[in-house]
Amino acid sequence: MAARPHCCYNVRMTSQLDLENIRSALIRQEETIIFALVERAQFAVNTRIYTPGAMQIPGFHGAFVDYLLRGTEALHATVRRYTSPDENPFFDDLPAPLLPALSFHAPIAANTVNVNARIRRDYEACIVPAICAAGDDEQYGSSAVCDVACLQALSKRIHYGKFVAETKFRTARAEFTRFIKAGDRAALYAAITDAEVEARLLLRVERKAATYGQELNLAHAAPTYKIKPRLVAELYRDWIIPLTKDVEIEYLLIRLDAPEPEAPAAG
Amino acid sequence: MAARPHCCYNVRMTSQLDLENIRSALIRQEETIIFALVERAQFAVNTRIYTPGAMQIPGFHGAFVDYLLRGTEALHATVRRYTSPDENPFFDDLPAPLLPALSFHAPIAANTVNVNARIRRDYEACIVPAICAAGDDEQYGSSAVCDVACLQALSKRIHYGKFVAETKFRTARAEFTRFIKAGDRAALYAAITDAEVEARLLLRVERKAATYGQELNLAHAAPTYKIKPRLVAELYRDWIIPLTKDVEIEYLLIRLDAPEPEAPAAG
Repeated sequence: MAARPHCCYNVRMTSQLDLENIRSALIRQEETIIFALVERAQFAVNTRIYTPGAMQIPGFHGAFVDYLLRGTEALHATVRRYTSPDENPFFDDLPAPLLPALSFHAPIAANTVNVNARIRRDYEACIVPAICAAGDDEQYGSSAVCDVACLQALSKRIHYGKFVAETKFRTARAEFTRFIKAGDRAALYAAITDAEVEARLLLRVERKAATYGQELNLAHAAPTYKIKPRLVAELYRDWIIPLTKDVEIEYLLIRLDAPEPEAPAAG
Repeated sequence: MAARPHCCYNVRMTSQLDLENIRSALIRQEETIIFALVERAQFAVNTRIYTPGAMQIPGFHGAFVDYLLRGTEALHATVRRYTSPDENPFFDDLPAPLLPALSFHAPIAANTVNVNARIRRDYEACIVPAICAAGDDEQYGSSAVCDVACLQALSKRIHYGKFVAETKFRTARAEFTRFIKAGDRAALYAAITDAEVEARLLLRVERKAATYGQELNLAHAAPTYKIKPRLVAELYRDWIIPLTKDVEIEYLLIRLDAPEPEAPAAG
């Protein structure tokens, strides 16, 4: 029997452009993001791990966190993580997959939109200082391992904008095509924005953060939290949602130049 | 200025043998373990990733999960994770650290107690089938990445038994020495067991699992959970606690043969 190729980094391709399925995936990713942030918040900021050269690793020029991030991506690349359309690497000099290539049904147009450089920069500059105690607790390895998990979860969520954008494009092809040809970012922004969905998201995320980040070890009168729940809602409102929309808009702007994605299999 | 060696995989050594500090660390690790299990429970069992040869990776003989686990350990070994006394690798053929060695204050006696082979086996045989849906959803990469996080969290927690044992040994050195010299496992078991602490732990863990594994997306009348809270309490009662005690006993049985750990610095 010929071996059927199996997917390691798979998303359920045939249903991937159903807006309800995309929303379910994004909603479940909220837990992953909150868990990862709560884990990172155990440790101090530890500026040293973000400072290139502060911890000298022979053969690597860069910050300690980037050494671990690149090493993790290199390992995952060998099992073809980044051949999956919902995964976008931070580094572009990764090894080739050791596993045989998969013929993915490509639900989105081929594209090179990748905002990981901004994610990496803002994460260090804004998110870590917001969720972690100031200072240095020497927990460098543990902090950096948490950083890798946070960065991967945030990157996956934000780049999911490509699936969101493709789905919206297909439901209003003529309108989107007009905006894209005019290069009208404002019109695209308005077309992809659903204020009601966003308002529900912010309420839900704050409630999740209050539940999953709740301190249960101490008998306090008032609940205490490992991360302020409001902070997580603000992170979504001020950073994750806008950045996702940037991905959507960038994706749409090159949408017409890219080869048309395959039609989903009839089923 | 001479660079002060910095620790990547550090535990706060000077206070590491204070039983209250050890308990705090173990309590915080409960969150890490529950988060990791909840993340893994998103995906099906995916037996294929545990079956050696089912996914052939050139140059690697073993299961897909072990490829990712070994690769992750190899990366972390280069930043000296496994030189820290609270980290125990699953693989013993890991590369040497690229970072300069640290002179750890060694709070526990040098020892080779390592139950990771049992952890790995039981995790696959019992834990994954208990928390994941049966079958195969082809989410191999995501599942295996979660497995690595689960295995590392469980291993760290269980091997913390060494610190627990050393601390208890120091508080009743004569009594423990007598039991050790007699090879009296039953007496050691009784001496390290604190039924009241265990009962509190089980209640706390079930409450944490009910909170952190709670489904918040759906408006159900009764709360629903990503993992049954009772299951997590049972995992602790029937597996984590007994295995931790095994580590404690094995540690104690070779305690007198090992070089005496350094006395903590006066301070």
